[in-house]
Amino acid sequence: MQGVPVILVAEDDQLMHNIVEDALAEGGFEIALATTGEEAVTLLKSNHSEYRALVTDIHLAGKLSGWDVARAAREIDPAFPVVYMTGAAADEWASQGVPNSILLAKPFAPAQLVTAVASLMNAAPLKPTE
Amino acid sequence: MQGVPVILVAEDDQLMHNIVEDALAEGGFEIALATTGEEAVTLLKSNHSEYRALVTDIHLAGKLSGWDVARAAREIDPAFPVVYMTGAAADEWASQGVPNSILLAKPFAPAQLVTAVASLMNAAPLKPTE
Amino acid sequence: MQGVPVILVAEDDQLMHNIVEDALAEGGFEIALATTGEEAVTLLKSNHSEYRALVTDIHLAGKLSGWDVARAAREIDPAFPVVYMTGAAADEWASQGVPNSILLAKPFAPAQLVTAVASLMNAAPLKPTE
Amino acid sequence: MQGVPVILVAEDDQLMHNIVEDALAEGGFEIALATTGEEAVTLLKSNHSEYRALVTDIHLAGKLSGWDVARAAREIDPAFPVVYMTGAAADEWASQGVPNSILLAKPFAPAQLVTAVASLMNAAPLKPTE
Amino acid sequence: MQGVPVILVAEDDQLMHNIVEDALAEGGFEIALATTGEEAVTLLKSNHSEYRALVTDIHLAGKLSGWDVARAAREIDPAFPVVYMTGAAADEWASQGVPNSILLAKPFAPAQLVTAVASLMNAAPLKPTE
Amino acid sequence: MQGVPVILVAEDDQLMHNIVEDALAEGGFEIALATTGEEAVTLLKSNHSEYRALVTDIHLAGKLSGWDVARAAREIDPAFPVVYMTGAAADEWASQGVPNSILLAKPFAPAQLVTAVASLMNAAPLKPTE
Repeated sequence: MQGVPVILVAEDDQLMHNIVEDALAEGGFEIALATTGEEAVTLLKSNHSEYRALVTDIHLAGKLSGWDVARAAREIDPAFPVVYMTGAAADEWASQGVPNSILLAKPFAPAQLVTAVASLMNAAPLKPTE
Repeated sequence: MQGVPVILVAEDDQLMHNIVEDALAEGGFEIALATTGEEAVTLLKSNHSEYRALVTDIHLAGKLSGWDVARAAREIDPAFPVVYMTGAAADEWASQGVPNSILLAKPFAPAQLVTAVASLMNAAPLKPTE
Repeated sequence: MQGVPVILVAEDDQLMHNIVEDALAEGGFEIALATTGEEAVTLLKSNHSEYRALVTDIHLAGKLSGWDVARAAREIDPAFPVVYMTGAAADEWASQGVPNSILLAKPFAPAQLVTAVASLMNAAPLKPTE
Repeated sequence: MQGVPVILVAEDDQLMHNIVEDALAEGGFEIALATTGEEAVTLLKSNHSEYRALVTDIHLAGKLSGWDVARAAREIDPAFPVVYMTGAAADEWASQGVPNSILLAKPFAPAQLVTAVASLMNAAPLKPTE
Repeated sequence: MQGVPVILVAEDDQLMHNIVEDALAEGGFEIALATTGEEAVTLLKSNHSEYRALVTDIHLAGKLSGWDVARAAREIDPAFPVVYMTGAAADEWASQGVPNSILLAKPFAPAQLVTAVASLMNAAPLKPTE
Repeated sequence: MQGVPVILVAEDDQLMHNIVEDALAEGGFEIALATTGEEAVTLLKSNHSEYRALVTDIHLAGKLSGWDVARAAREIDPAFPVVYMTGAAADEWASQGVPNSILLAKPFAPAQLVTAVASLMNAAPLKPTE
């Protein structure tokens, strides 16, 4: 077994970025960081198969929100695991979130993030080996 | 026990409207019909508590799609049961659908529609008695 | 295939009894009626293997409520399917209900009852053949 | 909406065949009948996209059992909805069944079969439009 | 993101208390300890919004059992996450437990406790921002 | 609380064995190692109650595959938690896997394995105390 699953994290806050990176590293994941929604979408479009899940803040620097980034990810891969993090926008999940996603309301514990990512990845439909 | 649960149906095609109405009537539901997305949203905004679920086509006359109507319903009630019906837009559900919704790809059997509506209503979180 | 699955219905209201019996008969079930919680518990204790599910009103004539009847059923068979029906006590389900049960708030459609009973029976863990 | 969803039914008993056909027709489905496991597998291999679900008895005339037919169906389409019917082999499901399948132990009510088929079809992952 | 989710733990055994506290601290949670069921209920009644989940032993010092504490929690908040821990009372869960709860039979691993708490918190319905 | 849950791991690759053992030990589990499918089945048959879950590679030294080991485990205990690990055989899970199992496609993170094992153990139906 070589390689480590990489999680795409869209986060513009340095403190949150560190918390998320530490939690996911503890669980055995690597992260790729995008500091704006636009950057996250660009990374997904150019090589989405490199990432196994998206963890995104709702409020991001730039024009795109986390809701937008998740929709872009699902347009590329309909089964892409999505975890939202938010302090103030939790009540918008029921109307703006994508199906089979998890929203973590801040403050949350690192174990909640790791469990959310791992559960969604373990439940994702299998793709044919390429 | 008095009263019958009313399902809001957004459908601009007369044939589909009849199929949906017959299937839901067979299951013991009444329907309220909206022939455009705009009309559906207006009905939801004016008295959403009258309706127990939304069944919506994706392609509707007018500017709003079924994806838009469902988001409007969830902004009013975050737990509102949503069933989409579509012939061509099924692959957009993973990116455009709201969480905990069901998509029926045409052609579907009447029992699929009734089971979808009933399952979502039975699973919806209970609200305090008013 | 001989025999028809029998559902134990605890209901003291004649009108509701008729509605439930018609709905379940339409789905292919027979019912056994208990008009008090005490009678339902007696039937379950004497020959529970005759019944495949419990459908119970919350408010019953006698001292036992539907919550009590369901707990008695689960003490006899931990996987027994349970559907509650209620007009006023829906908000007590989260604290008084048993796990993996469904609550139908009145008014409900016959298809909701049939779907609730069938879904729970289909999901019940299999028991060793005896 | 044209066309009716067709369910492939593998059943060698005429009485059961009639019960299944009546129940599914009532729910709005058509059936295609295979009286042996070999015939069912041949139909799936030649044009599986014609069928939306498999309903199979466990004990079939011929060498193949219902467990075998279901595995063949899943090798062709990993998300194919599968419902097993059995009188005596229910306790083998946990070891012989395929994931995300439903087993109906005889005797069952017609509504259980319809709910099982409809629930699995409604939950099946969407495939790209072709 | 400031603050850490606090879990209310009802446990009268010092050794178990330490195991639970270590496991939850490892996952990033803080705990508030109640050594009797009465104390747990008092804490929930006075300021339940301070706690994000209940982890309770079944057998507690005092008159109230863990089953009682969980029911009290759900009467205050119908969606409160509940995890039971028990050595001898596991078979009572199906009849005495509250819906959507998890029971951990001793001995369990710390990761089971953390996964149980995190899964229930991640699945809990979102409440309107206050 | 005494004793630690033991997970039976069927794995013939020393590197994978170490990765699995480290991940599960971090979560608080012990492992028992079988290096062939035959050895795993022998251990399950002689004293399955000692193990709380099976984690198995698909390709194993000897004649039995991981699919075979899991079926043997489920014939002994129909609710035994099963996690498969594989690099190349992921697309066979839908037809060869047992119900309610999880498949981890390599490479996976340690947290995915721990979450898979813990989730299945937490969801397993309770058995009567013996």
